[in-house]
Amino acid sequence: QRFCSQCSAAITLRVPPDDNRMRAVCENCGAIHYQNPRNVVGVLAVWQDKVLLCRRAIEPRYDKWTLPAGFMELGETTAQGAMRETQEEAGAQIELGPLYTVIDVPHAEQVHFFYLARALSEDLFPGPESLEARFFPLDQIPWSELAFRTVITTLEHYVEDRKGAQFPMHHYDIPLPVPD
Amino acid sequence: QRFCSQCSAAITLRVPPDDNRMRAVCENCGAIHYQNPRNVVGVLAVWQDKVLLCRRAIEPRYDKWTLPAGFMELGETTAQGAMRETQEEAGAQIELGPLYTVIDVPHAEQVHFFYLARALSEDLFPGPESLEARFFPLDQIPWSELAFRTVITTLEHYVEDRKGAQFPMHHYDIPLPVPD
Ligand SMILES: [Zn+2]
Ligand SMILES: [Zn+2]
Repeated sequence: QRFCSQCSAAITLRVPPDDNRMRAVCENCGAIHYQNPRNVVGVLAVWQDKVLLCRRAIEPRYDKWTLPAGFMELGETTAQGAMRETQEEAGAQIELGPLYTVIDVPHAEQVHFFYLARALSEDLFPGPESLEARFFPLDQIPWSELAFRTVITTLEHYVEDRKGAQFPMHHYDIPLPVPD
Repeated sequence: QRFCSQCSAAITLRVPPDDNRMRAVCENCGAIHYQNPRNVVGVLAVWQDKVLLCRRAIEPRYDKWTLPAGFMELGETTAQGAMRETQEEAGAQIELGPLYTVIDVPHAEQVHFFYLARALSEDLFPGPESLEARFFPLDQIPWSELAFRTVITTLEHYVEDRKGAQFPMHHYDIPLPVPD
């Protein structure tokens, strides 16, 4: 951020009064431009013991498989956003279930939310952000071709929870990745 | 948002290619300025069957009582943010417990997270955002003087859950308020 979005004056980085961290401050109009983490909302949808994955047509992680998910938009709930992303990326008809994973990803400045859902049909109509959408039996999940650690860990919890047929909400952090 | 924060050119509101909603677009440098919901993170801290509340020294809801809470910052987890806010607003020493409520507040473009916590001392050192911080017995919670509906509903869940001494995570929406 270099310029004030309210008045176009140049931004100063400084700690405002009664604050304790650097902010983008406009000395011309007085606006303080805060930045905050973003939420990613998605769905783990199930059809006859198979889980819905989409192969990404966009960066990052082009060609990798993901649960349908994307940034939460203004004016919607996490549930509404998760359903919207499932429609946009997979064209799947689903009945949304409970919130299943809530994952802090501080190095990405994000919180991820995945809901469980039941697919109402096997028909899929992937949108422009997906090369392909497909239901995978649990023993055929492409683990080495998954796009994100929050997708991997959510699927790991699901495979484990299926053994006891109990699906409690899981909350955890994804720590900073270890450099390769 | 009237000007591009990258190049200071005037903003155009339009739907970008491959998108489906209006964005703040810069025709000069090509930047698309997205806006997303913000997370509020807070704590329900308990000392000897009493809950910690702060009386607000800032708007909105000046003089009303709240659980310590505030906007999540970049680079922190929801848990770290909740602990930071408790330190800043109440100066309380706490041991953080599990995530307790996750509340969608779409009309405010927010998601609220409250953690349970155990206070390690009765000593409180309220900061400049609080007129006062105090531990309240459950039967003396100032229900009619609470600042926010997410605070009220989190405390309601806690009072109810105390009866069975089970504190599962609760996820729900706060619908649009009915006009007065
Ligand atoms: Zn300005
Ligand atoms: Zn620009």
